[in-house]
Amino acid sequence: MKRRDFLIAGGLTFAAATLSPSLFASQQQPLKILALVFDDYETLDLHGPIEMLGHMQNVQIKLIGASPTVRSYQGPRVVTDYQLDDVVDCDLLLVPGGLGTRTLINDEALLTWLRRQASVSKKVFSVCTGSALLAKAGLLDGVSATTNKMAFSWVTSLSQQALWQPSARWVDDGRFLTSSGVSAGTDAALFYVRQRRGEAEARRIERLTEYQWNSDAANDPYAVEPMTP
Amino acid sequence: MKRRDFLIAGGLTFAAATLSPSLFASQQQPLKILALVFDDYETLDLHGPIEMLGHMQNVQIKLIGASPTVRSYQGPRVVTDYQLDDVVDCDLLLVPGGLGTRTLINDEALLTWLRRQASVSKKVFSVCTGSALLAKAGLLDGVSATTNKMAFSWVTSLSQQALWQPSARWVDDGRFLTSSGVSAGTDAALFYVRQRRGEAEARRIERLTEYQWNSDAANDPYAVEPMTP
Repeated sequence: MKRRDFLIAGGLTFAAATLSPSLFASQQQPLKILALVFDDYETLDLHGPIEMLGHMQNVQIKLIGASPTVRSYQGPRVVTDYQLDDVVDCDLLLVPGGLGTRTLINDEALLTWLRRQASVSKKVFSVCTGSALLAKAGLLDGVSATTNKMAFSWVTSLSQQALWQPSARWVDDGRFLTSSGVSAGTDAALFYVRQRRGEAEARRIERLTEYQWNSDAANDPYAVEPMTP
Repeated sequence: MKRRDFLIAGGLTFAAATLSPSLFASQQQPLKILALVFDDYETLDLHGPIEMLGHMQNVQIKLIGASPTVRSYQGPRVVTDYQLDDVVDCDLLLVPGGLGTRTLINDEALLTWLRRQASVSKKVFSVCTGSALLAKAGLLDGVSATTNKMAFSWVTSLSQQALWQPSARWVDDGRFLTSSGVSAGTDAALFYVRQRRGEAEARRIERLTEYQWNSDAANDPYAVEPMTP
């Protein structure tokens, strides 16, 4: 596997460094966000967070997948920036869910990549059934986490070691941020903005996008009953 | 310009017709949704509606743009299914907004295509500053409409003939459905689901996506002051 750096791959940033090294040197490194995509990923799981994260200043968002283009469950296709033989240093690894996860949990190459990629990602953020992939890879062992409430029994069956939360819009457990289903990822993304850049920045992006942020992780309108042991 | 039909372009549907004509003949035509994309389109303007519309039964969603791939304002790229020399019969033409509209309003070829495409679209649905393109093309003359409330004075300056609404999450004026900024498009898309397929279907999709639908067009948390004449 190759290990690459966003600064080398990012043409614009590289050009900026070439043209104006002093300016470049004085700037902060961009926040590097990498999102896994796969056929039958759920559209909003990916693009809701990208909307909110992409409005932060000095951020780069790249997609990684098994093929040059990848089709969402809803039909439209996205272009990948990296292939799955790459492992990319990043600040945030975004793992969306969707129907495609039902087969991907049995893809050993994908799970091996996911473990390696997670190890070079400062934080891992799953939306919806993206947590199924993390659970199957063993990454959520001992981690407090949540998932899609419509698929709660399936996802939670994939790891007895994860500390599954039946009532949470999202759960932040340090290195792992896991959200509930689909739309919850957008709310959790704004939580990440708040964590990284402060409340004012999160509220600026909420207004800019005319969004109505469910900003309280404990406010879960789709909570399920706690599991009996 | 070429005029194409989704059934010919849609390989899967065509294959189904070939393999099983009697089954195919007994099925309803799919609901055909076409979405315009352009560089610096706003991610959620496009993908929020695609999420909700794409969960209806028997629907096809295709993208049309000036080049084979198109980059969002947030960075990631989508693949177009049609090029802008095509005019495609459809049930719904989705026109997102975003920073790209600031230059596109001066693109005469785009505006000409938009007028032709609108004429073969049963309904036209703009999100955010997508309404700037409709307004500049003259399509909103005499039409009750709304737009992004953060860019309200700019968009409304593009048409004195449109009947601009300063307080509305979205406005449905028959052939034209126009929403407020970014996130409002997702709410308006569920309104379209309700209009086409009924309340129960809209609520099913809301639950499936763990969404909290602002289902009342009059509930506009970002309303602006009415303009003085």
